[in-house]
Amino acid sequence: MITVALDVMGADAGVGPITQGAAQLSREDVPIRILLVGDEQQITTALDAEPHEPKRLRIVHAPSFVSMTDKPAQALDDKPHCSVLAAARLVARDEAQALVSAGNTGAVILAASRTFERCRGVRRVALAAVYPTAERHGPHQDPFALMLDVGATVSCSADDLVAFAVMGSAYSRTISDIERPRVALLSNGSEPTKGTPAIVEAHERLRQLEAVEFMGNAEGLDIPRGTADVIVCEGFVGNIVLKMLEGVSEVAKDMARAAYGSKLRYKLGLGMLSKGIRKVRDMTDWKQYGGAPIVGFDRLVIKAHGRSNARAVRNALKVAAKTVERDLTREIRVGMAGPVG
Amino acid sequence: MITVALDVMGADAGVGPITQGAAQLSREDVPIRILLVGDEQQITTALDAEPHEPKRLRIVHAPSFVSMTDKPAQALDDKPHCSVLAAARLVARDEAQALVSAGNTGAVILAASRTFERCRGVRRVALAAVYPTAERHGPHQDPFALMLDVGATVSCSADDLVAFAVMGSAYSRTISDIERPRVALLSNGSEPTKGTPAIVEAHERLRQLEAVEFMGNAEGLDIPRGTADVIVCEGFVGNIVLKMLEGVSEVAKDMARAAYGSKLRYKLGLGMLSKGIRKVRDMTDWKQYGGAPIVGFDRLVIKAHGRSNARAVRNALKVAAKTVERDLTREIRVGMAGPVG
Repeated sequence: MITVALDVMGADAGVGPITQGAAQLSREDVPIRILLVGDEQQITTALDAEPHEPKRLRIVHAPSFVSMTDKPAQALDDKPHCSVLAAARLVARDEAQALVSAGNTGAVILAASRTFERCRGVRRVALAAVYPTAERHGPHQDPFALMLDVGATVSCSADDLVAFAVMGSAYSRTISDIERPRVALLSNGSEPTKGTPAIVEAHERLRQLEAVEFMGNAEGLDIPRGTADVIVCEGFVGNIVLKMLEGVSEVAKDMARAAYGSKLRYKLGLGMLSKGIRKVRDMTDWKQYGGAPIVGFDRLVIKAHGRSNARAVRNALKVAAKTVERDLTREIRVGMAGPVG
Repeated sequence: MITVALDVMGADAGVGPITQGAAQLSREDVPIRILLVGDEQQITTALDAEPHEPKRLRIVHAPSFVSMTDKPAQALDDKPHCSVLAAARLVARDEAQALVSAGNTGAVILAASRTFERCRGVRRVALAAVYPTAERHGPHQDPFALMLDVGATVSCSADDLVAFAVMGSAYSRTISDIERPRVALLSNGSEPTKGTPAIVEAHERLRQLEAVEFMGNAEGLDIPRGTADVIVCEGFVGNIVLKMLEGVSEVAKDMARAAYGSKLRYKLGLGMLSKGIRKVRDMTDWKQYGGAPIVGFDRLVIKAHGRSNARAVRNALKVAAKTVERDLTREIRVGMAGPVG
């Protein structure tokens, strides 16, 4: 049985959807126990409203939490017993094997930094996100690819980018069963000379690194196409790209809604319409892809979206359990032994 | 009558679409003369196949050209009489008032750099691109916004970003009639402290600059939404964002096609389907927006997309004429007098 510490607090819609996701999963036939870390009273109330399997859930009370608008460093200093730190400590003490949170991203990364060690050779951790693509990937024909870093860093050195490539490759191999994931560096042109000095240097080194199936630079076009299994970039760029995909999704939805309108003939056409537009829309619907792993720590951390609904939380918990089961941390350690050793 | 020097060579589909665009425009009721610069024989053949008004077109022979795969600096050194340099020289000698090219972007920028001066205070020129947005802009309710730089630079200083803001603002005011265009800096968060050091410094300076209606940082989400009239970023990021929008468009088209399929019921639903999907698709169809201005030179330069069809070329020529008519260069000079003076 795998135990996941779930920080229930600080998500956009409160404890409701987070608790619901855990409750739903507790009734499924998957060997996961969940420690619900947060305000006991709120969690109890939320659980009362949702069918669940009590044997697979345990509430761990935390008296405070970090909100979305809090400054992470200040908030963690001021609230040493907040839910995200409490959940991280459960993992550090081996009472759980992975940490999942839908709260303030900066606070999750910082709480993990203050509680866990980094894997040997990793100077900076990365937030990785799965995003939908036109091309399918791996033996399960997954309609998505992995991008990292999407927000744990701003600018990165060549060392960092190489480490991200190794960690992304390990994640893709472990979680998506892709034996040799094709890894690309995001740049402003396919030639090895294109990009910032850090990208040019990382390109050169990745070409010589046997542990990574490096396919060269990817361009903006390659993101929605899904040419690579793993796209590596610095956090500043990854953040913009990911939020832009979200924005495109939002706009596509609004436009589809406007096109349906309230006219009867559009409503009649809904069956036909829906398939095409839904496909376009689903391209950027992160809810179905669960959480984003934060890679580079010696413990497993999954960041779920702040706007996660119950389904997204359930998926994030499942991904967390899979990373434990398949020992992602070990995979990353082995991969990092190459570049540093 | 405004005269535009059109580099006919080096586009992806050869002289055909470029010449066609010029030929079509020559028959419209707009006061533009076009100098077709390139291989005389190829242009003559292309013109023979297309109705045109000979009084408004003149062929200027150039014996060579820069191809898309040529290295710009080397190619311009090796081919001093190539079409893009010849066209730029016509502008420098005042035989034309603007340069339009659908060829190798790097070569167009470099040919302009070697032939024109930069406006006072501009250290680096920027390639600006119009891209489609959900929100409408300005008095004409334009469904697009401006982004710069999208590829003339890689990394930029705070000075460069401030100059881009001034130039983008001037372009938006001059071409889209937006009296005080709202300008934003693209970053990984809305707070003034977010982003690279150059962005943080530019943010601080733009807040104090009266010439620009600075609305703060824009995030990835704001790109498709179209929250700002002008988005400023360094070329590395702008290139990725723009190519990504192109890729999303491509994927949306493919998915729509797959959804229509060959089934009769989809074909019957086409009328209803088309409105929604066409809107999503058009969001990223650059062909309807003509060319991308290269701002910062004391002469007007429009870069049309390498894959331009006749319609895109016609639109690029019209935009070029408008920049001349409304004296964009003067607007930029006046705007730049603020930050440097």
